[in-house]
Amino acid sequence: MSSTAGEVIKCKAAIAWEAGKPLVIEEVEVAPPQAGEVRLKILFTSLCHTDVYFWEAKGQTPLFPRIFGHEAGGIVESVGEGVTHLKPGDHALPVFTGECGECRHCKSEESNMCDLLRINTDRGVMLNDGKSRFTIKGEPVYHFIGTSTFSEYTVVHAGCVAKINPEAPLDKVCVLSCGICTGLGATINVAKPKPGSSVAIFGLGAVGLAAAEGARISGAKRIIGVDLVASRFELAKKFGVNEFVNPKDHSKPVQEVIAEMTDGGVDRAVECTGNVQAMISAFECVHDGWGVAVLVGVPNKDAAFQTHPVNFLNERTLKGTFYGNYKPRTDLPKVVEQYMEGGLELEKFITHTVPFAEINKAFDLMLNGEAIRCIIRMED
Amino acid sequence: MSSTAGEVIKCKAAIAWEAGKPLVIEEVEVAPPQAGEVRLKILFTSLCHTDVYFWEAKGQTPLFPRIFGHEAGGIVESVGEGVTHLKPGDHALPVFTGECGECRHCKSEESNMCDLLRINTDRGVMLNDGKSRFTIKGEPVYHFIGTSTFSEYTVVHAGCVAKINPEAPLDKVCVLSCGICTGLGATINVAKPKPGSSVAIFGLGAVGLAAAEGARISGAKRIIGVDLVASRFELAKKFGVNEFVNPKDHSKPVQEVIAEMTDGGVDRAVECTGNVQAMISAFECVHDGWGVAVLVGVPNKDAAFQTHPVNFLNERTLKGTFYGNYKPRTDLPKVVEQYMEGGLELEKFITHTVPFAEINKAFDLMLNGEAIRCIIRMED
Repeated sequence: MSSTAGEVIKCKAAIAWEAGKPLVIEEVEVAPPQAGEVRLKILFTSLCHTDVYFWEAKGQTPLFPRIFGHEAGGIVESVGEGVTHLKPGDHALPVFTGECGECRHCKSEESNMCDLLRINTDRGVMLNDGKSRFTIKGEPVYHFIGTSTFSEYTVVHAGCVAKINPEAPLDKVCVLSCGICTGLGATINVAKPKPGSSVAIFGLGAVGLAAAEGARISGAKRIIGVDLVASRFELAKKFGVNEFVNPKDHSKPVQEVIAEMTDGGVDRAVECTGNVQAMISAFECVHDGWGVAVLVGVPNKDAAFQTHPVNFLNERTLKGTFYGNYKPRTDLPKVVEQYMEGGLELEKFITHTVPFAEINKAFDLMLNGEAIRCIIRMED
Repeated sequence: MSSTAGEVIKCKAAIAWEAGKPLVIEEVEVAPPQAGEVRLKILFTSLCHTDVYFWEAKGQTPLFPRIFGHEAGGIVESVGEGVTHLKPGDHALPVFTGECGECRHCKSEESNMCDLLRINTDRGVMLNDGKSRFTIKGEPVYHFIGTSTFSEYTVVHAGCVAKINPEAPLDKVCVLSCGICTGLGATINVAKPKPGSSVAIFGLGAVGLAAAEGARISGAKRIIGVDLVASRFELAKKFGVNEFVNPKDHSKPVQEVIAEMTDGGVDRAVECTGNVQAMISAFECVHDGWGVAVLVGVPNKDAAFQTHPVNFLNERTLKGTFYGNYKPRTDLPKVVEQYMEGGLELEKFITHTVPFAEINKAFDLMLNGEAIRCIIRMED
């Protein structure tokens, strides 16, 4: 049992005081976990586009001061009342979406969209009492999607914490908390390409590259990367992408280009841009009879997906996924094992690392498109 | 071996001389089957909306004179060169879509949309030589979707003929050639509801009732029928439909009505109207996390399916189906067995029978909405 259990911990956290301004590392007080909560010591965290998106706060309700961060790995410091699946010392990944284990979604084999702990980007407090566990000189600092991992210690709902193999290197597996699992699961769990099949991946950012990694692991033969940024093509080869299409190079719709390349269409397509035209292209480029397209990217709230119904009647399937259909507590430990056994290659996603003191560099690297994932080392 | 093998057979057929005009029963000459073809003696045929639609020829290219009919049961009279899976005397169902067994679709476990023998509504001749096997006084009469079962004898591509159990009553199982399998398979093979689940069926015509029958066989608990014609609700009870929604009775979109009835949405929905708004409602009324909607109805060529992509991202699936995903030669014999074993109830679909001489009555019954299926007895 940690000697800090039950006490307020003073530690460093990166505070976003206002939208788009550099984070400031300050001393915060982190309250003990309440019933059903866990306090984690964060060792490694990485930066995801979602952090940047809400930090920029263009179009969303701004909620500041806030502690961002949601891809991380750490060790359980203490647990609140009633928490039975975790104990101090456990190695764990916090996840922005949870698994209460009790709701219809958790009980369904087909869903991971927990009713209680599904992502909530507007809430900046804990569910238990509607309050923050973070304060600076007595003033509350808001949480972010239930994780707030840009802090040496954080408090998370126990349903949002996956216990993992303590042998797993946290500086690598921390990237599984969000984007990599989202893309990987979109292909492995939802698109389910067969060995020898063809898969088109729309968007070669971190999520799209993870979707390509899923296709590679699944034994797909042709992995066609589609992106408007030609410089991404070289990098994507590492992830199994072996053909490329830049829609800018063609006068006809990209779905027609792909249909011609593949004698009528690809077996599977995974859309990882959030652009609604790309979604339509991803759907319309799959082969009739057996094609499956999976939507991953989050679209603008005014976007409308539109296609002729005959494209469905010709036996195409369109599905969406959330966090790659992984149930965080049940499935993440297995994904960690997949990495440990060498099937899943995480190292190639990690392009940069910075010490916590230089966390704003991670934002710069993400904003200028240099990083796939930049790991932030909390202890340095 | 039939004594008529290799000879032209003179027999009666119902000729559609022009669009929308009553059929005329006349003597036709039916040529012997060529390589890869089969000549069938038709014993029972039934009338489907598709016959009526192309007979009315509103909007399609008219092709007359023509012999309609595509739901039927009969006996193989003779086979052409190279036909090995059928022999004279076999009991068989002709089907408007085929299974060549050689193309990528036939070799795929996921598709039944044979490249060679997929439905073709514009072609009025045989594939082999581009000619008709029917003549009246030397003048050709066009075929209809490769079947033309409104004739005592017809010639069909062998890939469009399913050999079935000779014990099966042809006056019942003939309805499996089109609409009943289409609806049944949409639920059983594509929507795949689990026992105890909820299923919404949009459109309570023959195909929708067959989709409901599929839900009943699958053990669905709540089968919600959706139709604008209230008089269909009473009949639908026989097919397992135990709740009803008439969109006309509500001021809000029917998908919202269904979501309220079912705590967030049904587990599965099957759309059997072809109306694009019904397709959108069917998709949007399935539960997030696990809901699957299946499109069956054939829409207007200008229709656009439109929805917000988030409806997909919340883990809903939309699929279309063609002939209930049944591969005709492989799967139809099994559906016949399902009927023989009592699991599938075909009798309740058959509301009327008429002798061949009164075939135009079947059209009247269909047009005034009285019949689900009217069987036409060729021998009387």
